[in-house]
Amino acid sequence: MDKTLKEQLQFVIDNKTKPPGALGQLEAIALQAGQVQQNIRPVIRNPHIVVFAGDHGIAATGLVNPYPQEVTTQMVLNFMNGGAAINVFCRQHGIVLTIVDAGVNYDFNPDSSRTVPLQERQAKGQFINAKIGYGTRNYMEAPAMTMEELMQAMTEGERIVEEISLSGCNTIGFGEMGIGNTSSASLIMSAITGIPIEDCVGRGTGANESQLRLKTTTLKSVFDLYKHFLQNKKGPQLAHAVLNTMGGFEIAMMTGAYCKAAERRMLIMVDGFIATAALLCAKLVREDITDYCIYAHTSGEQGHQGMLKYLKAEPVLNLGMRLGEGTGAALAIPLVQSAVNFLNEMASFESAGVSEKEKAAGLITR
Amino acid sequence: MDKTLKEQLQFVIDNKTKPPGALGQLEAIALQAGQVQQNIRPVIRNPHIVVFAGDHGIAATGLVNPYPQEVTTQMVLNFMNGGAAINVFCRQHGIVLTIVDAGVNYDFNPDSSRTVPLQERQAKGQFINAKIGYGTRNYMEAPAMTMEELMQAMTEGERIVEEISLSGCNTIGFGEMGIGNTSSASLIMSAITGIPIEDCVGRGTGANESQLRLKTTTLKSVFDLYKHFLQNKKGPQLAHAVLNTMGGFEIAMMTGAYCKAAERRMLIMVDGFIATAALLCAKLVREDITDYCIYAHTSGEQGHQGMLKYLKAEPVLNLGMRLGEGTGAALAIPLVQSAVNFLNEMASFESAGVSEKEKAAGLITR
Repeated sequence: MDKTLKEQLQFVIDNKTKPPGALGQLEAIALQAGQVQQNIRPVIRNPHIVVFAGDHGIAATGLVNPYPQEVTTQMVLNFMNGGAAINVFCRQHGIVLTIVDAGVNYDFNPDSSRTVPLQERQAKGQFINAKIGYGTRNYMEAPAMTMEELMQAMTEGERIVEEISLSGCNTIGFGEMGIGNTSSASLIMSAITGIPIEDCVGRGTGANESQLRLKTTTLKSVFDLYKHFLQNKKGPQLAHAVLNTMGGFEIAMMTGAYCKAAERRMLIMVDGFIATAALLCAKLVREDITDYCIYAHTSGEQGHQGMLKYLKAEPVLNLGMRLGEGTGAALAIPLVQSAVNFLNEMASFESAGVSEKEKAAGLITR
Repeated sequence: MDKTLKEQLQFVIDNKTKPPGALGQLEAIALQAGQVQQNIRPVIRNPHIVVFAGDHGIAATGLVNPYPQEVTTQMVLNFMNGGAAINVFCRQHGIVLTIVDAGVNYDFNPDSSRTVPLQERQAKGQFINAKIGYGTRNYMEAPAMTMEELMQAMTEGERIVEEISLSGCNTIGFGEMGIGNTSSASLIMSAITGIPIEDCVGRGTGANESQLRLKTTTLKSVFDLYKHFLQNKKGPQLAHAVLNTMGGFEIAMMTGAYCKAAERRMLIMVDGFIATAALLCAKLVREDITDYCIYAHTSGEQGHQGMLKYLKAEPVLNLGMRLGEGTGAALAIPLVQSAVNFLNEMASFESAGVSEKEKAAGLITR
C-alpha cells in the first residue's frame, strides 16, 4: 500500500488534539481505513451485513449439536421478520441487512429475489435465494459438497457482494446461521492452521460436557477420514479441498464474498468463529485479504481465540458473545465510524491553537 | 434490589431467540439496566456526558507532567469549539455534552451560565462555570484544597447532575480534563485501595522513562507527607481527607456528581483512570454506588487495571485508550443501548415460534 499516504495519515492522526497514541486501537483503525480506501479522509458508506444461512448434513446425526436442524429455518424466518439480535443491532446503527439462503433445508419463498431496494432491507432482513442445496451431505459418509456446488457457492458469494458494492456500500460484515456449523468451522480451522482438532472444538450453541466429548470424538474421526486428501495441498487448492470435504454452503459462499469484498477495496468486518473460519479459507485464495479486515470481536466460542492468534488479529470487542449472525460485526461498526470521525472531525493542534508556545490568553478571541 | 424483578428480567433474557448467554456481557448490562430503572423494559433516555475540568498546583512544578498547565485551558476552549475527541463521539451518538469549569486557571467567560438549552449542548460542549478556584494548591506544600472548597465542589457536582437528571436524562457519564490529574488519581488510588503508590503511577499524557521515575518519586514523598492524616479514617471521612489533601477540584466535583447520579437512580458510565479514582471516593461516601455503574473501558493508563480489579469491574471496552474527557464512556453508550434494545426488541422463542417442538412448516404461515 501507498507508503506516502500511510505517513500522511499518521501525521494527521498524531496532530489531533490528544497525546500521541491516546485513542489506542481507534488510531490503528483510522490508519487502516485510510489505506484501504486510499484516502486521507476515509468514510463509512452504507454499511451492510450479509447473513449466509445453510444446513449441515452432520446436524441430523445429533452427534455435534444440541439444537435440531430445523432451528436454521426457524431463525431465517426470524431474520426475515426482524426479530433476531442481528435485526435489532442493524436497526440501531442504520446497517442494511441481507439474508442469504445459501443452502437451508427448506423452501422459504421460491419467488424471493433481489427486487427489493437495498434501503428497505434494513428494518427486516432482505432475503436472497442463492440456495445451492437442501443442506450439505453428512461428511461422515461423503464429502460435504461437490466441487461444482463449491464453485457455485463461491461465485454466488462474489456476485452478492459485487451487487452490494455497486449499490454504494464500502463497509461490509458477514454473519451466518447454520445448526452444526461450528463443527465445520472447527474442522476448517484444524486443517488450515494445523492446530489439533481437540483445541478447535467448542461448545457451539451450548453443548454440555458429554455432548462436547461426543462432538470432539466425532470430528476427530471426520478429520482422519479426509486428512490424506488434504495432504500436500496449499493455497486455493487447500481452501477448495477443505470446503469440499468438510465445509458448509454458507461458509463457502462467505469465502467467495470475502474475496470479492477485498477486490472491491471494501472494509471488511470479521465476525466470530464461523466467519473467521471462512476468512482462513479466503486467505488461502487471496493472501492480502487481511489488509481489508477489521476483527470485530473475540467470540466466546473456544476455538476463536486460536484463530485470532494465528491471524495475529487484534479484535475491537471482547464481550463474550457467541451468537453468530454477524452480531459482533454489527456492534463494532460504530467504533470504526468513531475512528473515521476522529480522523475527519477532530481539531489539530494547529487549528485549536493548543501548543506549548501559544498562551491561553491568545485563544479566547478565536 | 427487587429479587422478583431480577428473576423476571432473567427470564425475558433467556427466552430471547438465542442460546442462553450467547449475548455475553450485553445480557449482564440489560439485567443491570432493568434493575437500576426498576423496570422490565428499561430505556436509555437523553444520555449525557459531563466533563469536569480543573487545574492542579503540582503541574506548575513540572515534576509530574510533560505538558504545561496551560493545556487544560486550551483543551477546555477546544471542547467549547467542538474540536476535541469527546465532541466528535458525542455528536456521533447523540449524547449531550456539558463542560464544567471546576477550577481551571483561567477565566473563560464570567457570564457563561446554565442558560443554553440542553439540546444545544450537543454539537459543542455547553459550558457551566462552577469554578472553585484557579487550580488547587501544590500538595507538596499544603493540602490541595480547604475543606470548604471540597464541600463546595462536591455540592456543585450534585447540583449539576440534579439539573441534568431533571431535564430527563437517565444515563450519564463523567469525563475530566486537568493537566496533572493522573498524579492526583494515583495518590487517591493508593490511599483508598492500599496498593503501593509505585503500582498506581503511570505515564499519564505521555511521560517518558525518566519523567515517570521523577513522577513516582515525587508522588511517593507526597503520599508520605499525608499518610498520617489519612490513618484510621474510613468511609466518607477517608474520602474527604484524601480529596482535601491530594485531590483536584474536578475530581471532588465528580465525586459529588456520582453520588447524586446514584441517588437519582441513573445508569452511570464510568470512564478511565481519573473517573474511576473519583468513583473510589464516591464509594466511600455511598457504598451501593457501584450498583449503578457500567465500566466503560479499561484505560491504557497502568493504574486503571488495578482499580478495576479492586472494584471487581468488568469493563465493556478495552481499546488501549488513555485520553480521558469521558471518551471511553461515550464510546460504550451505544453498547448499553444495544443491551437495552435486544431486551426490548428481540423476539422470544414463543413469539418467533422457534422451538424444538414446532416444525418449520408450521411457521411460514404466521
